Amino acid sequence: MVHYVQMDDHTTLADLRRRIAEFIAARDWEQFHTPKNLSASIAIETAEILEHFQWLTDEQAAAALQEGGKLEAVAEEMADVFIYLLSLANVLGVDVSEAVMGKLERNEGRFPAEEWRGRAP
Amino acid sequence: MVHYVQMDDHTTLADLRRRIAEFIAARDWEQFHTPKNLSASIAIETAEILEHFQWLTDEQAAAALQEGGKLEAVAEEMADVFIYLLSLANVLGVDVSEAVMGKLERNEGRFPAEEWRGRAP
Amino acid sequence: MVHYVQMDDHTTLADLRRRIAEFIAARDWEQFHTPKNLSASIAIETAEILEHFQWLTDEQAAAALQEGGKLEAVAEEMADVFIYLLSLANVLGVDVSEAVMGKLERNEGRFPAEEWRGRAP
Amino acid sequence: MVHYVQMDDHTTLADLRRRIAEFIAARDWEQFHTPKNLSASIAIETAEILEHFQWLTDEQAAAALQEGGKLEAVAEEMADVFIYLLSLANVLGVDVSEAVMGKLERNEGRFPAEEWRGRAP
Repeated sequence: MVHYVQMDDHTTLADLRRRIAEFIAARDWEQFHTPKNLSASIAIETAEILEHFQWLTDEQAAAALQEGGKLEAVAEEMADVFIYLLSLANVLGVDVSEAVMGKLERNEGRFPAEEWRGRAP
Repeated sequence: MVHYVQMDDHTTLADLRRRIAEFIAARDWEQFHTPKNLSASIAIETAEILEHFQWLTDEQAAAALQEGGKLEAVAEEMADVFIYLLSLANVLGVDVSEAVMGKLERNEGRFPAEEWRGRAP
Repeated sequence: MVHYVQMDDHTTLADLRRRIAEFIAARDWEQFHTPKNLSASIAIETAEILEHFQWLTDEQAAAALQEGGKLEAVAEEMADVFIYLLSLANVLGVDVSEAVMGKLERNEGRFPAEEWRGRAP
Repeated sequence: MVHYVQMDDHTTLADLRRRIAEFIAARDWEQFHTPKNLSASIAIETAEILEHFQWLTDEQAAAALQEGGKLEAVAEEMADVFIYLLSLANVLGVDVSEAVMGKLERNEGRFPAEEWRGRAP
């Protein structure tokens, strides 16, 4: 299911975080990057992903993603969410990999595979 | 501004994506991971980050984050958003690093540093 | 399609707005009701409506709404969104009915019925 | 605090709901108005309200709302949320006034005025 992805294979979370921090610092935008503003920004950009699928059934969405430009447009909205989420991690000093790995481990306990196989969480 | 982060320094995007894909596959949850459902899930978890700052001023938020447990609680909600966002990248075959780097590059053009220094985008 | 609704037949927007304003004033909560906080609150409560349908197909959602308590739970989340939206109208002095009627009128022009019949907007 | 509002004084929730139902029926759009699609639509439009205040402090937001066109733009996004929310009430047969009044009554119990005066919920 996971398609082959080139840059993701050798890019660390810290690589992206540094690149984003430099972009923000070069514009002196840290002053706008409060936790509350960044949380609101994540919510705003997230809605733009969802908008691509607003009126579509799952089948229609799958078909639309085959059409020219749709996947690229969705990927660009996803990038916006990532950028704000990593900006929030930068501001809060959160280790994203540790948070994700820790959450998956806790979820292993909450949703034992045998018990939850094929059942929505 | 970027605090020292340990795991992020040596964890690639592909590492996290693989770990998430295994968690989902072990539960046979790919059937629920349609682009539309995942987009909705990102929006739902995003709201839970924002909820931590709902009634707080920026100053109050900064103080609350110093209190025991608040930062950890926010980091856990951030992990949820990351997990769904990387799940969507898995389903769509989007190279996250390429999308983020590409978007930052386009933003360099849209927001020249000299012109936008200190001005909100 | 519009089911029979009792209180909505004789309750004005101003009736709800007054009742909400009194609730807020009795707790001295106007200080928290800034436009930004209320906008964030609308987003937070909206996600709780969406959460009820997160992993469901349209068919599963229709079935779930027949089960005991689901419709009432969704209605309660809808009430939360309404309360914050009318609170924002109170703070901004927006005439909701005028805004809704005006928007529908503009949409009549943007989406002529003959042209858009059966096509998603 | 509640400004004088003209149409809201004599417009019932049922008036708005009927007007919206007619607009939808004239375009044969009921097929798109599933509970899940409408919930997603509410989330999408909600983000557009929040976007108006994304980088602003409460003071800056108050100033921006005095500028030409800002309040009207926010009111238009609010109308979009109302239209989808009332569409969802139409589809589900929810009596909005009853849901709002019921929720406020329960909140009177959860947040006794004496105890919660001046404290954020």
